[in-house]
Amino acid sequence: PAEEADLLLAAAFVSDAQYNRNIPFKTSPEAVRLYYLYNHWIMRTATYFFIFLNLSLAVFEEPAVYPLPFLVTSVVEVLCLVVFFGRLTHFAKVTLRNVFWKDTKNICIMVAILLSLTDLAIYGVLRMYDVRSIRWSRIVRPIFLINFAESRQIRRAFRSIRNTLPEITYVFLLFMFSLLMFSLMALKLFGERNLQTAEGLPYFKNYLEIVFDLYVLVTTANSPDVMMPAFDFSSWYALFFIAFVIVNTYIFMSLFLAVVYNNYKKHLKNEIRKLAYMKHCKMIEAFNILKEEEGTQFVVREAQWKQLVKLVAPDISNSHRELLLRISDDEQKGFIDKKSFVQLADLLNIQVITLKIRSHPLGQWMPGVYKSAVSRFLRSMVRHRGFVWTYDVIILINAIFIALDEETPYISYAEWVFLALYIIEILLKVYTYEPRAFFGKNQFWNWFDTLIIFAALTATILNTTLRSTTKYNSQQILDIVFILRVLRLIRIVDSIQRFRVIMNTLINIVPTMLTFGGLTLVVYCVFAIIGMELFHGKIQFFPANSNAPHSLECGNTALKDSLFARAKYCKNNFNNFASSFIVLMELTVVNQWHDILCVQPAKLYFIAFHIVMVIIIVNIFVSFILEAFFVEYSLEKSEVETAIEQKIQELGMGVQEDELQDEHLLDNMESAEHHLEGEGGTKPQSKGLVFKIASKRYRTVDSLLQRMFEAEIPLEDEGPSVEEFLNLSPTAAIPSNVTSESAA
Amino acid sequence: PAEEADLLLAAAFVSDAQYNRNIPFKTSPEAVRLYYLYNHWIMRTATYFFIFLNLSLAVFEEPAVYPLPFLVTSVVEVLCLVVFFGRLTHFAKVTLRNVFWKDTKNICIMVAILLSLTDLAIYGVLRMYDVRSIRWSRIVRPIFLINFAESRQIRRAFRSIRNTLPEITYVFLLFMFSLLMFSLMALKLFGERNLQTAEGLPYFKNYLEIVFDLYVLVTTANSPDVMMPAFDFSSWYALFFIAFVIVNTYIFMSLFLAVVYNNYKKHLKNEIRKLAYMKHCKMIEAFNILKEEEGTQFVVREAQWKQLVKLVAPDISNSHRELLLRISDDEQKGFIDKKSFVQLADLLNIQVITLKIRSHPLGQWMPGVYKSAVSRFLRSMVRHRGFVWTYDVIILINAIFIALDEETPYISYAEWVFLALYIIEILLKVYTYEPRAFFGKNQFWNWFDTLIIFAALTATILNTTLRSTTKYNSQQILDIVFILRVLRLIRIVDSIQRFRVIMNTLINIVPTMLTFGGLTLVVYCVFAIIGMELFHGKIQFFPANSNAPHSLECGNTALKDSLFARAKYCKNNFNNFASSFIVLMELTVVNQWHDILCVQPAKLYFIAFHIVMVIIIVNIFVSFILEAFFVEYSLEKSEVETAIEQKIQELGMGVQEDELQDEHLLDNMESAEHHLEGEGGTKPQSKGLVFKIASKRYRTVDSLLQRMFEAEIPLEDEGPSVEEFLNLSPTAAIPSNVTSESAA
Repeated sequence: PAEEADLLLAAAFVSDAQYNRNIPFKTSPEAVRLYYLYNHWIMRTATYFFIFLNLSLAVFEEPAVYPLPFLVTSVVEVLCLVVFFGRLTHFAKVTLRNVFWKDTKNICIMVAILLSLTDLAIYGVLRMYDVRSIRWSRIVRPIFLINFAESRQIRRAFRSIRNTLPEITYVFLLFMFSLLMFSLMALKLFGERNLQTAEGLPYFKNYLEIVFDLYVLVTTANSPDVMMPAFDFSSWYALFFIAFVIVNTYIFMSLFLAVVYNNYKKHLKNEIRKLAYMKHCKMIEAFNILKEEEGTQFVVREAQWKQLVKLVAPDISNSHRELLLRISDDEQKGFIDKKSFVQLADLLNIQVITLKIRSHPLGQWMPGVYKSAVSRFLRSMVRHRGFVWTYDVIILINAIFIALDEETPYISYAEWVFLALYIIEILLKVYTYEPRAFFGKNQFWNWFDTLIIFAALTATILNTTLRSTTKYNSQQILDIVFILRVLRLIRIVDSIQRFRVIMNTLINIVPTMLTFGGLTLVVYCVFAIIGMELFHGKIQFFPANSNAPHSLECGNTALKDSLFARAKYCKNNFNNFASSFIVLMELTVVNQWHDILCVQPAKLYFIAFHIVMVIIIVNIFVSFILEAFFVEYSLEKSEVETAIEQKIQELGMGVQEDELQDEHLLDNMESAEHHLEGEGGTKPQSKGLVFKIASKRYRTVDSLLQRMFEAEIPLEDEGPSVEEFLNLSPTAAIPSNVTSESAA
Repeated sequence: PAEEADLLLAAAFVSDAQYNRNIPFKTSPEAVRLYYLYNHWIMRTATYFFIFLNLSLAVFEEPAVYPLPFLVTSVVEVLCLVVFFGRLTHFAKVTLRNVFWKDTKNICIMVAILLSLTDLAIYGVLRMYDVRSIRWSRIVRPIFLINFAESRQIRRAFRSIRNTLPEITYVFLLFMFSLLMFSLMALKLFGERNLQTAEGLPYFKNYLEIVFDLYVLVTTANSPDVMMPAFDFSSWYALFFIAFVIVNTYIFMSLFLAVVYNNYKKHLKNEIRKLAYMKHCKMIEAFNILKEEEGTQFVVREAQWKQLVKLVAPDISNSHRELLLRISDDEQKGFIDKKSFVQLADLLNIQVITLKIRSHPLGQWMPGVYKSAVSRFLRSMVRHRGFVWTYDVIILINAIFIALDEETPYISYAEWVFLALYIIEILLKVYTYEPRAFFGKNQFWNWFDTLIIFAALTATILNTTLRSTTKYNSQQILDIVFILRVLRLIRIVDSIQRFRVIMNTLINIVPTMLTFGGLTLVVYCVFAIIGMELFHGKIQFFPANSNAPHSLECGNTALKDSLFARAKYCKNNFNNFASSFIVLMELTVVNQWHDILCVQPAKLYFIAFHIVMVIIIVNIFVSFILEAFFVEYSLEKSEVETAIEQKIQELGMGVQEDELQDEHLLDNMESAEHHLEGEGGTKPQSKGLVFKIASKRYRTVDSLLQRMFEAEIPLEDEGPSVEEFLNLSPTAAIPSNVTSESAA
């Protein structure tokens, strides 16, 4: 039997496989302990905290949204860098020396730390002598977000983009060629006509300006305006612009999407294939550590297996563990063979909900009252479809009341009535359904309802108190109250089955969308910092009725009579980090961007941003949503899930998905994943205990991705390589090409 | 042996299968003859001509671009309707009576003819009494385009849209719900603030206006403007708009694309599967007509087969026919079995190019000169890579000259030099390569070059003549010269291999894009006609410097100081068919559409157009381009193609694709599909004759679609149903469910 240290090592491998981590750690007991510490959620959360702290420094540094003294921001920055260095050192102690130094992401972090420190020191010294210099190292800050091991998805997205670049470049060059050709045509057709734009400027006179105008037309931002002078001159010239829009906006932009989608998918598939292979290797290694001989084959004994599962997933219930054992050790032989053992990582990733049929606590405490005729009538009423419908009608009436004027006293009273009605609804539901079932882990809408209602209640009370004491509405609280009130209405979506399906799909892809949030954040940070250096202070915003000179021209006389000033865009500037972000957001949306870029050298900056953000990242985002939706729409249960479900059914502990949607069954059930711990080794057959698979829910982005490409990834390494691994030492078992993920 | 009539019937079935037609014709000899006449290209072209004539009547009718007397347009319309009726009668004679009357598209055409005639009569009578009424029947004109048997693709696209509607509707309702919620929030947050827009109008006061403003924001058309007042008031309010754009513009719009793409693909796949099944049935019927007993099986004899192929495809060369025979009758047994026979339709659809190695005609006429050292040096020079590079450089220099000012005399001389250089290039190439090879069917770029150069030469000479005689540049001719001059530069794309690949892909999907052109035409026609009835004359366009009153307000005092008038959009009106089309084009592009719709009741019209055109049709267009590109990028040769290619190689008559790209080989070859006819039954082994498959080229949209879904369509009807057909009469062989395509 394996020792404690071996078990720990095996558990490390299994949990690595389960979470698709990819850290080639040393196998010594101390290293494994350090490795557990490295992966502890507190350590990881702290790292993320410091990464975001470091990024958010831009808000407090010159040019600041909330200015802080240079000393404070530099101390915080140094602190962050120290933490990053500590985390890296920790990682170096965990992993093998040669692997560590081969990994470009570690080198990247070190270089970034060095650069930041150097820049900080230079800036500090120059500042002491009152020389204003540029904090150029702020651009490297997103590197920490990208390169720490936890941001695998973002790193992968960047890798995919890098791999997609050559293909995009060719299409882009062809697109640019088309643009240049059309511009040349436009120059010849309209250049000599002496036409004027609506602002009275010369129309299509200068080649470079034509190129830029037509580039803007591709984004449709100046759509009819750029055409109107030529169109007014002769209707036939509209054909030129129609041809241009069809070729460049519709065909080329679709082509970009097609190329990005195709390549992104292809590269992602490769990555996931590599990941699946890694997972398999890790599980084999864990098996090799724990294996014992049994007859002609190597196996893992039941006791060892149980200890291992307890180590890897300490928070799953005993009954759940029993269930997994039953699936792995199908014939109850007392040991698990290699094939079943390798499945363990996938088994652990499947969310099995342990449901326990238990009676309502009120029924236990006050059985007389709870089981009385009145109580029973009440409960059957709440369970009735009419109850849901009644509340749907109430919500609709509420919506109308919200839209009405606030000042009428009756309407502000009505608000209290509605609040009361909603609270009564929640209380009634908790009374009818079991409280722990009502607030179960997967009861998204119940949680949503309750939180919204109680937040609204708190805010409304707070506001009323403030009003009665100070005769003054707090605008912030009032705004929150308004938003909460409207959010409440969302609940009606849950009443309609078809909407619920679409909403669930949307909720399911939220974690994946966060990856793109990260990607966008990195791009925005870099562009915002560059933008602040280039355009800081060029445009000033003055509040309405300001008496400052040039307040109508945004403090810049060059903007006199410009569209920018006329449309009152003065607040769209790069004067601090927050407004830079908002300007970049507007540029992502594309419209009016040619007006926002009133400063001449800004054109290149904006075109670069458009190419990176709109052509590449937005397209990848769209590709991803497309793919995720296709998967969600067509998803069958996976093989492993089917096996588990079959087992659950065999053991007579199953509950059908459709039965569950019927609330009558649910009302006595409870998500009891944590509550069973105390009961010790209860046999899962114990009456009133059922399992169900929380299908179509993904804990991690990786698992969604793996599901997306599951059918297309042949596990060709299932056969011979498994045998190969048996003859290899644990550390040598990872082939050098596989470590490329961490090296990339 | 089958008689003449039987052969004709079988040929009709085969050609139906080959072109994926779906007309359940009668089997009597007269009906088959009528059927051939029905499918004759002249008849079909004439039908299309009259359909477009009928549609283009809108240009000449009130409100007209080019006004014609009512008498003329109504006579032309009656003529068109008579032709449509004739075509329909012809079809009725060809097809079975019960099938004809069950087919909704025939009923549609009849009703449309009746409606048009009635409306025309009423309008004519009212006109005589000087009562102005509405020509409402003009909306039904696109029905002819949709419902004539030739427009199968457009009809199929409409069917797919209809099938996609329920799914889109749910997403759309959810989207509308989200929009209404956000609007409600906006009303509560900003309604009481007394903010003003840049035009000084009240900001977010009225709920319906907020909904509309936010709907416009979804299309990004008023992107920063709608946000600016709130943003100026407090930076935090930007978060509201950012959340709105992320949820509605990015997520919901991607969701629309995903749903449209998914459903469109699904329905298209079903249609294509049905089509493949139909094709199979038709081939079996043809087989049943010609079959003879041979041992234990039924077969078609070689002589019969040859006659059949001659009837079906009269314009393929003898050698090509021999090749097809060799593939069908693999073992040269003198007959073709059923399995090979069924393949014939696919075989005929594969474009096999017959190439013949023949010497240059000059080499035959003047061997002494052509084979002299100078001539040989010249030819080797032209074949050299440097020749291509030289001309690429010339093109680039030409591009710079085009961009320079026309008026300088040197530059206008340079134009003649460039023209001369290009003509010399073409002559040299024709001298070096065989002329018939140079102007081969698939030599797209050679044709393109020659046409552009000679058109430019003609136009330039014409212009110079005009100028020297009348001292006056014809603007139209000059414009054409400019365009041709710039188009010439496109040729440089062909020199770069990667660009050529992308361009070929683009050229290949052109026919498919034409389907969407048809779809767009139908939608535009309907909306243009409605728009003209609703908004005709509301806005007037006056040329610059006009003295008419209100010329600055587009002749409508309500537009005084509006953005519409200020941006000089007056020519964007519904006053005639042509400008309606251009306005609809601008609305498709989406930008500034809220400004274009200055007339109040127009909002609903524009939202309807946006939903139909942008949300549905543009998304389908994008889906289609995506899918077509994925297919083009990943396309392998089909099974039948591989079989043909193998056979070609076996017979030693093949030429590798890559060899062909080498121009050295091409220069002695000729596309000889037509020239071989006269030579009679030459054996294909004759020296100097090679074939090649024009791979990745699709004659029809259907074949591309079939290729797209080929892998996913199981031909499950390959087995048993074939046996079933053997026992059925030819007409009964088409199961009732299959005729649903024509009935739909």
